[in-house]
Amino acid sequence: MTPGAGTGWLAIAGLGPGDAALVTPEVSAALTEATDVIGYIPYVARVPARDGLTLHASDNRVEIDRARHALELAAKGARVVVVSSGDPGVFAMAAAVFEALEAEPAAWGGIDIRVLPGITAMLAASARAGAPLGHDFCAINLSDNLKPQALIERRVRLAAEADFAIAFYNPRSKARPDGLVRAFEILRTTCGDDRPVLFARAVSTPEESLSIVPLTEARAEMADMRTMVIVGSSLTRIIARAQGPILYTPRSAP
Amino acid sequence: MTPGAGTGWLAIAGLGPGDAALVTPEVSAALTEATDVIGYIPYVARVPARDGLTLHASDNRVEIDRARHALELAAKGARVVVVSSGDPGVFAMAAAVFEALEAEPAAWGGIDIRVLPGITAMLAASARAGAPLGHDFCAINLSDNLKPQALIERRVRLAAEADFAIAFYNPRSKARPDGLVRAFEILRTTCGDDRPVLFARAVSTPEESLSIVPLTEARAEMADMRTMVIVGSSLTRIIARAQGPILYTPRSAP
Repeated sequence: MTPGAGTGWLAIAGLGPGDAALVTPEVSAALTEATDVIGYIPYVARVPARDGLTLHASDNRVEIDRARHALELAAKGARVVVVSSGDPGVFAMAAAVFEALEAEPAAWGGIDIRVLPGITAMLAASARAGAPLGHDFCAINLSDNLKPQALIERRVRLAAEADFAIAFYNPRSKARPDGLVRAFEILRTTCGDDRPVLFARAVSTPEESLSIVPLTEARAEMADMRTMVIVGSSLTRIIARAQGPILYTPRSAP
Repeated sequence: MTPGAGTGWLAIAGLGPGDAALVTPEVSAALTEATDVIGYIPYVARVPARDGLTLHASDNRVEIDRARHALELAAKGARVVVVSSGDPGVFAMAAAVFEALEAEPAAWGGIDIRVLPGITAMLAASARAGAPLGHDFCAINLSDNLKPQALIERRVRLAAEADFAIAFYNPRSKARPDGLVRAFEILRTTCGDDRPVLFARAVSTPEESLSIVPLTEARAEMADMRTMVIVGSSLTRIIARAQGPILYTPRSAP
């Protein structure tokens, strides 16, 4: 399903959470055929250099510039892969590319554009912990860069009311230390004290660490930019094992 | 990250949506080392037969029997892979295995159990259509086999109120023709008439077909057991292109 070689194309690809064994063969094939790889510095660093491949690494928060650059190169005949961590369609580069495309559809109308899915962070974190997303769930980006804090809080409240398990992306950064504090405050008013909270950091990398704590003991300081936070539903529970706890949500709801 | 060979182990693995290019190397490696593969008939059919590998295919709706069988084999020293379509942790076999484990923790306490993530159906469907899950979203299983219809309807209502994009798993089967009808009825009372609805059938297989219609024209008959239905948020929109429409949700919310 890789875009055909010979003419320019643009693939927006997900590299998964970190481990090369979690990169799909589809994405690996696109990287093999690419002339240009574009993305945020740490993601481009995961692509091996080779002759004929130009790596374009850029800093965070320049997503639209990066998207325009990728479209421009593809329009000139380059075979371009925009890389995201995880899945490119989940709080990542695919939407940014489409925003840039929509702004100037005539300029880039002819480009073959494909999105190549990847293992998004919540799936990797869930797998490592057990199966906390085994029943209905939602994914909320806690970054308030591009949306009002009030909307985030409203979604957290309604998600708790719906009794979804909740995966929080971008739970915390230096610029936004308080979003996760507020989310936990809201959840404490709705959910039981012993609601399990998973902090899964850098899953599938050498820096991986996991911890599960009850909601009353969950602190925003337990998360950083590389952490996925998953709050269980009312049914999510823990199986204690010598090898470490398993966190899962059963399939049945009463 | 494959469980070590030599002793018994159990891997609960996701085969992705269908295309072999979407199976992670981690899952392929586990299948190479396995002595036994267990799963629903059409998923086991995707695993190539070879000497030394026993394929155990079973029918739908026997998930707990299948989970117990897998644990029993692993306890006897077999290297067992339980296969699911998509991701094993999203409405699939991981939760069933943990239910079986929790019921008899002593019997199966020593087994090395790992969950190997996969490309779940909503990510594959989203990638093919564009990026409808580019902003906050939720995933709801419409099957009422294991939960009350009232809970499903409540979640659909709250998800619309939260303005999530919504991915519906198991939208329709012969035994449950009406769940999706009800979901669309609820959404029509909350969402605008032109809210886009994606029907993505058998993505990444030869039978793949996609269509996008406004909510007013969405009919339950457009889905079957192999269809993923994604309803956009209020911000989800369509870019018309000669190559086919792109459905996406921008990163910003006002």
